[in-house]
Amino acid sequence: MASIKISGQKRLVIVSGRAHPQLALDIATELGSDLVPTDARTFANGEIYARYDESVRGCDAFVIQSHTDPINEWLMEQLIMVDALKRASAKRITVVSPFYPYARQDKKGRGREPISARLIADLYKAAGADRIMSVDLHAAQIQGFFDGPVDHLFAMPVLLEHFRKLLDPETLTVVSPDMGRVRVADIWSDKLGAPLAIIHKRRDPLVPNKVTVHDIVGEVDGRVCLIVDDMIDTGGTIVKAAEALKRAGALTVVVAATHAIFSDPAPTILQSDFIDSVVVTDTLPIPEHKRFPTLTILPIAPMLARAIHEVFDDGSVTSMFDGAA
Amino acid sequence: MASIKISGQKRLVIVSGRAHPQLALDIATELGSDLVPTDARTFANGEIYARYDESVRGCDAFVIQSHTDPINEWLMEQLIMVDALKRASAKRITVVSPFYPYARQDKKGRGREPISARLIADLYKAAGADRIMSVDLHAAQIQGFFDGPVDHLFAMPVLLEHFRKLLDPETLTVVSPDMGRVRVADIWSDKLGAPLAIIHKRRDPLVPNKVTVHDIVGEVDGRVCLIVDDMIDTGGTIVKAAEALKRAGALTVVVAATHAIFSDPAPTILQSDFIDSVVVTDTLPIPEHKRFPTLTILPIAPMLARAIHEVFDDGSVTSMFDGAA
Amino acid sequence: MASIKISGQKRLVIVSGRAHPQLALDIATELGSDLVPTDARTFANGEIYARYDESVRGCDAFVIQSHTDPINEWLMEQLIMVDALKRASAKRITVVSPFYPYARQDKKGRGREPISARLIADLYKAAGADRIMSVDLHAAQIQGFFDGPVDHLFAMPVLLEHFRKLLDPETLTVVSPDMGRVRVADIWSDKLGAPLAIIHKRRDPLVPNKVTVHDIVGEVDGRVCLIVDDMIDTGGTIVKAAEALKRAGALTVVVAATHAIFSDPAPTILQSDFIDSVVVTDTLPIPEHKRFPTLTILPIAPMLARAIHEVFDDGSVTSMFDGAA
Amino acid sequence: MASIKISGQKRLVIVSGRAHPQLALDIATELGSDLVPTDARTFANGEIYARYDESVRGCDAFVIQSHTDPINEWLMEQLIMVDALKRASAKRITVVSPFYPYARQDKKGRGREPISARLIADLYKAAGADRIMSVDLHAAQIQGFFDGPVDHLFAMPVLLEHFRKLLDPETLTVVSPDMGRVRVADIWSDKLGAPLAIIHKRRDPLVPNKVTVHDIVGEVDGRVCLIVDDMIDTGGTIVKAAEALKRAGALTVVVAATHAIFSDPAPTILQSDFIDSVVVTDTLPIPEHKRFPTLTILPIAPMLARAIHEVFDDGSVTSMFDGAA
Amino acid sequence: MASIKISGQKRLVIVSGRAHPQLALDIATELGSDLVPTDARTFANGEIYARYDESVRGCDAFVIQSHTDPINEWLMEQLIMVDALKRASAKRITVVSPFYPYARQDKKGRGREPISARLIADLYKAAGADRIMSVDLHAAQIQGFFDGPVDHLFAMPVLLEHFRKLLDPETLTVVSPDMGRVRVADIWSDKLGAPLAIIHKRRDPLVPNKVTVHDIVGEVDGRVCLIVDDMIDTGGTIVKAAEALKRAGALTVVVAATHAIFSDPAPTILQSDFIDSVVVTDTLPIPEHKRFPTLTILPIAPMLARAIHEVFDDGSVTSMFDGAA
Amino acid sequence: MASIKISGQKRLVIVSGRAHPQLALDIATELGSDLVPTDARTFANGEIYARYDESVRGCDAFVIQSHTDPINEWLMEQLIMVDALKRASAKRITVVSPFYPYARQDKKGRGREPISARLIADLYKAAGADRIMSVDLHAAQIQGFFDGPVDHLFAMPVLLEHFRKLLDPETLTVVSPDMGRVRVADIWSDKLGAPLAIIHKRRDPLVPNKVTVHDIVGEVDGRVCLIVDDMIDTGGTIVKAAEALKRAGALTVVVAATHAIFSDPAPTILQSDFIDSVVVTDTLPIPEHKRFPTLTILPIAPMLARAIHEVFDDGSVTSMFDGAA
Repeated sequence: MASIKISGQKRLVIVSGRAHPQLALDIATELGSDLVPTDARTFANGEIYARYDESVRGCDAFVIQSHTDPINEWLMEQLIMVDALKRASAKRITVVSPFYPYARQDKKGRGREPISARLIADLYKAAGADRIMSVDLHAAQIQGFFDGPVDHLFAMPVLLEHFRKLLDPETLTVVSPDMGRVRVADIWSDKLGAPLAIIHKRRDPLVPNKVTVHDIVGEVDGRVCLIVDDMIDTGGTIVKAAEALKRAGALTVVVAATHAIFSDPAPTILQSDFIDSVVVTDTLPIPEHKRFPTLTILPIAPMLARAIHEVFDDGSVTSMFDGAA
Repeated sequence: MASIKISGQKRLVIVSGRAHPQLALDIATELGSDLVPTDARTFANGEIYARYDESVRGCDAFVIQSHTDPINEWLMEQLIMVDALKRASAKRITVVSPFYPYARQDKKGRGREPISARLIADLYKAAGADRIMSVDLHAAQIQGFFDGPVDHLFAMPVLLEHFRKLLDPETLTVVSPDMGRVRVADIWSDKLGAPLAIIHKRRDPLVPNKVTVHDIVGEVDGRVCLIVDDMIDTGGTIVKAAEALKRAGALTVVVAATHAIFSDPAPTILQSDFIDSVVVTDTLPIPEHKRFPTLTILPIAPMLARAIHEVFDDGSVTSMFDGAA
Repeated sequence: MASIKISGQKRLVIVSGRAHPQLALDIATELGSDLVPTDARTFANGEIYARYDESVRGCDAFVIQSHTDPINEWLMEQLIMVDALKRASAKRITVVSPFYPYARQDKKGRGREPISARLIADLYKAAGADRIMSVDLHAAQIQGFFDGPVDHLFAMPVLLEHFRKLLDPETLTVVSPDMGRVRVADIWSDKLGAPLAIIHKRRDPLVPNKVTVHDIVGEVDGRVCLIVDDMIDTGGTIVKAAEALKRAGALTVVVAATHAIFSDPAPTILQSDFIDSVVVTDTLPIPEHKRFPTLTILPIAPMLARAIHEVFDDGSVTSMFDGAA
Repeated sequence: MASIKISGQKRLVIVSGRAHPQLALDIATELGSDLVPTDARTFANGEIYARYDESVRGCDAFVIQSHTDPINEWLMEQLIMVDALKRASAKRITVVSPFYPYARQDKKGRGREPISARLIADLYKAAGADRIMSVDLHAAQIQGFFDGPVDHLFAMPVLLEHFRKLLDPETLTVVSPDMGRVRVADIWSDKLGAPLAIIHKRRDPLVPNKVTVHDIVGEVDGRVCLIVDDMIDTGGTIVKAAEALKRAGALTVVVAATHAIFSDPAPTILQSDFIDSVVVTDTLPIPEHKRFPTLTILPIAPMLARAIHEVFDDGSVTSMFDGAA
Repeated sequence: MASIKISGQKRLVIVSGRAHPQLALDIATELGSDLVPTDARTFANGEIYARYDESVRGCDAFVIQSHTDPINEWLMEQLIMVDALKRASAKRITVVSPFYPYARQDKKGRGREPISARLIADLYKAAGADRIMSVDLHAAQIQGFFDGPVDHLFAMPVLLEHFRKLLDPETLTVVSPDMGRVRVADIWSDKLGAPLAIIHKRRDPLVPNKVTVHDIVGEVDGRVCLIVDDMIDTGGTIVKAAEALKRAGALTVVVAATHAIFSDPAPTILQSDFIDSVVVTDTLPIPEHKRFPTLTILPIAPMLARAIHEVFDDGSVTSMFDGAA
Repeated sequence: MASIKISGQKRLVIVSGRAHPQLALDIATELGSDLVPTDARTFANGEIYARYDESVRGCDAFVIQSHTDPINEWLMEQLIMVDALKRASAKRITVVSPFYPYARQDKKGRGREPISARLIADLYKAAGADRIMSVDLHAAQIQGFFDGPVDHLFAMPVLLEHFRKLLDPETLTVVSPDMGRVRVADIWSDKLGAPLAIIHKRRDPLVPNKVTVHDIVGEVDGRVCLIVDDMIDTGGTIVKAAEALKRAGALTVVVAATHAIFSDPAPTILQSDFIDSVVVTDTLPIPEHKRFPTLTILPIAPMLARAIHEVFDDGSVTSMFDGAA
């Protein structure tokens, strides 16, 4: 017949933006590969340029970027890298954004607001992304913003493994820092076999203006309290919650979060006496000057590497999380 | 110059599916218009047909459908009606779905699930809808599922107006039936000047299997309790919540909800002694046999009519809700 | 180089809606495979849910659904299953709809009508389908409604094989029940080496209202008449045609059709004395109570299975039909 | 408020390709307008260029082109003119193609064929057309090929008006030249109050190869026969049909068709003795050398002009055809 | 009939990002309008938020942003503002980007590069922009990157008007600083009635590495030289060109450019003795510390305002530039 | 598990339009394959038809067409062939257009012009093309017109190899025939180690109307001049340039161009005494009557074949041109 046949082959490549090169390197190392050498630069007027030094034709490409401040720079760099992959004939392009940018702008709280988390999904699509991989989306509905597969990973197994060795269910209470996080805290409580407490913020009707009272539901007196959250930005809410717990008799307050945004003044106030230790992952880079003695950083690269391999090899990401992803 | 000029004119038309004709009629009446006469039929094998008896060319069309059981029939009828409008040269098509279908399937709870609420938005788009109007979306993120404007209305003003006359803030407590609804209950509490209570469901660790304990946070003993929710489907959760409140000393339990799905056995169990009255709107049709003595149905048509007029006349829907829509 | 290579592999999976599970099972059996275990359910308010119990990542998925009454339910179920496959990273999704839904609404007969057969193609696309496979489309133009490949299969070989053993070309006449079907009947006439007759319906100018006269063109007196059609819905046209044939002297009347919709009163009137036997395929489920003694049901699964295998293995579907598909 | 308001105005402009300038001019004249002066040229290597000499910003533009041989030239010219309108900020663009190009390639007759009629719809869309207007589509399903409104006009009223004055229902028989045209001939028969005859082509089983027999169903002996068809291309089928009619005793044979393609040898053979007169419209240009004494050409411009005005002014095109369009 | 009619009205609104508020204000003032009050903010982690304080429903919105460093911030802000307009039901959205971002990345100079200027057009589209307005695109082909109308304005009339009063054609020579700009310089030469000179950079074959020789074609000795370019970024090329001109005997060197990017060290080296004066427009903001005594800044707002008004009022932008836009 | 697995395989097929069958044949031969037998025809009214005689399901298809006059015919044929491939389930479709049609209409030179080169990219996309391969695009920005990968090949290596044997750098000058081609001529000058000369056309201010003066920059007296251009259409510019060179003392004038459009009167005037030889490639067919004694035609098939193989086998096209593609 009028044709030439060859056996098919799949090729996985990892490319990385400049936001958090260590994470990309760790992932590549876990996979036993190297990063594609890339020439990425910022020109005098702030425009970004990126070019791959090796052929990516026909490959299954994963574009790793970590959306730390300056978040819009890194987002544009990632979009430009996706465009370059598309035009260089990559077969499939997966955007790996461990911390999904603009995740908190996931709905219109008021009229005439944007839904920036949806916009981000549209921009990825426009640039040429076929798939998205992310960790602990602020709202699970964000998966529905993208017209294609979203691999939604959970950092919980990584964090749980750390805490299982350190904390005793007998004296532990899992704490949700507000109403919006109860569902997640519930799962922690289950997995650790420890009771749940919830902090409910409400305005004090006796004091005018916006004084807030932190009601605590559940037993915390004399217990080790583990506050679980998806991210720590400026840290205000977390410190207030820790203070309320300590005032209510908590012996120890441990904070666990996936995304360490650590905007000012987080690195300072997280060292408050109300907090005994803070455990995060490195989905976002944490520069030396934002680290402090009571901070523990768990590596997220092994989980991302495994998920990337499952995606590449048509395995199952769901099975990594007992059916939950 | 080589052209013909005429002054522009805008024309509003209301068309309606067969799920809840009264609602559409009420809306048209509020607007001082008639419904476009439509020939809608179901053929022997279940296929639906629809045709408009009057020209809709160049009009600003609003397609009203109420997604009650059989919900897929009414959805397909609405899609077919949108297709017919598109092909008949309607200028702009707004889908008016007071109860957004499949709203509860708004995320992947587990791997390999659909996100049907996003699918619905895609189907509306594919059929030719330019805009969506809906009331009290189960999750506000659903707005982000549609690639275009979504007018998200709130039934709260309608319900509040009803309760302000009936309930005394001094003896009233607003109750959120579960953690997911606290945010909305908080606003009610604010608007009514009454304190908030929250019901937290948790598994009883002492009893195996799925026995559930309803913890109540907040003061309910000796008070009138107003449970607020977005929808009542089979009614189980609401009745359990009411029972817990009564057992905790509540004097009266009133239930307020926007969407009266009233699947079996809701109409029966809502007449339980634990519930003193139920107040809903008619976003969904409530046939005679699903009504009961303690049920009050508030008309949603005036609000929908006003929103439609604002949309048609380039007014402001946001201003109907003090900036919240 | 900075990459990981593995040899490619293709994986075929069959998933099925709940409309006609036996057909899907038969297809899977023919292929030597199993159906992917699926949790499909209908909730209290009519909303449908579906989830796959095994990974479908990277697979070549065929979604089998049979569009019998309630046709809109089964259509929505199929769309939801496609959405779930898309979000679960299936590589390619083929909708297998042996009886294409809404096929008869393939054009605007009058102004302001929908073209629902095109809408269906758009909905499949919106949900994420890459390809469509169907049997005996009511109008071949429907292939052009979908922006992608449509594998159009013909049941004729299945039916012909059956009749070749039973009917003698010497005494046989192939009959087209109306003008719209002549082209197909012509091919039957050719394949069976038997002459063609055509029934032409016209209004009787002598009798007012809609009395219809059935003119017969061709020789039927003293012959075995084989009426061929693509579908039998309520059966009215077929029975009228059979009656006309018998009155014109036909010895025996046999009816052959691909799609047995069998809406009421078809199962009853097809047992009329004018019809000696009815032969159909099982593209649609035929429940026990719709079967009758003179009905023969031929299995369509072997043909669908073969076509699916050709599609999966990059073979040729066209070659299954001597170049006609 | 922070805005400037002016009253809206709509502007209609007619632009024309170079295939059939007289038709466009006639339409503009009917509308009381001029054509937009356009600089359209073909360069040395066959590339086409077009530019408008007046502003078309914000206008409702109708792009008239007649798809005569060289049909691909005129199609590309029309696409280029649409692109220029889109980039010049026309508000709405309607492609007016009285004879829809490639209409006969509306399905896959065999495997690996294109569906060029769908491709044409896609090309119009890609260039920027919002709407299509055409006359007597070869298959009504072509309307479903375009993802937007298609105004499907019928030349029948124009032709009927002509024949009503000339032909006497008492002696007239309407003839469908083949099975595929029966539906249309039926309507003619109805409108003219004259009986119907049908010509059925079949292979002669007694003579090998492709000798064709023309069976005539219906009364034609001693009658005036009016053959109705949508188009005359090379004329072969029509002349064969006329011959069969005359041999069967027809007194007079008149041919009516909408589209006068008149490829060779049509202009010659249509002057055959079997045909007494031919009546067509000028949807396609008929140059002097293709005209002959027995040919009558009816102007289609008044109907197109009226339809364009209805579209522009949000009137009703359907009402022009008693609900049929 | 079943409809409500009102006369149409068009509403123009101007919204502005935070990059160059003065320019937006100047445009609004020229138009006799105000800017829509907007709440735009940058959160702690760099995410941007924007909300309009007034209704923009149904309006013709122009989103003004000036793409100065940090260019990616301002681009994202503009995209977010477009998304908010789209979701707030603006009727039409025009992105006004006087300096088109990433314009110099308009092609793949080498393999595996992005085409970022095309990506930008895709991002604008994805966010919801219907149209683009820009000034002096680096390459006119960029208009073709956007699938919709692009109003391409020229600053030349503004600059020409300035120079006509100051320069005498008798002593003037227009200079193109490199081969790529000859076409534009040619038009200047024409408009000013002055001869043209061209600087051609080439590597010196006698000296290794990248020493560059500036050949000058045309008469510059003893003349006033006007170097014209579309943008000044770091200023290196311009200063080298000026030096070459002065060394070749030029009496005076004047530099004219549309876009004053003025990245370091431009503000310093433009004060070189080789350059007598620099004339630019304010398409980009020029902060106080980047200004210098020999710099003249011409306002671009009047031209943008006029173009916006022509677009809004369906006038002609082309006529502003004698047919060239 | 519920699935069938087979190892993947890739199949390359070459199909060809009728414009330049020899080129397609040469490419297939280079690849060691045959062309897919194709039935392509033009009907009486100019409509084109194409069908493949062998299965192309799942294949990696390259559609070769050469855009010579009648260019619109060949473009439509190619689009139709792409449509047929798409509907026949080809896996990937690459349009191979060695001479990109309408490449010179790559921007709006004036208002209300089309950007036909972008339109062509849109038409390819609409028909179903996934990728484009072309040689020496008139403007590199055209790559950005297509929303997907464009393999941009350069004929320079083919031409250079020819000239390296024939020309001596010592006596050679590379000549750019106008300003727009300097960049390319620069590269030639570099590769051949010969100096550069540029011809600058300008209007003669002393003579009214459009008399043009050809200024020559660089040394040409007594030298062998090699004029390099991307295409020769009517040949006017080239002959004028050659004349200017000879008048300025050039010993020999050789013309090198990739695309030999050779519209009239090119074949005649290229035989002028001012030109000593012309060297082109066969990207376009050059019929016998357009050839002349001083013409040399270099085969482009080897380069296209190699690029196709790299694309098929996921190799690198960039590496064929030292990183430039």
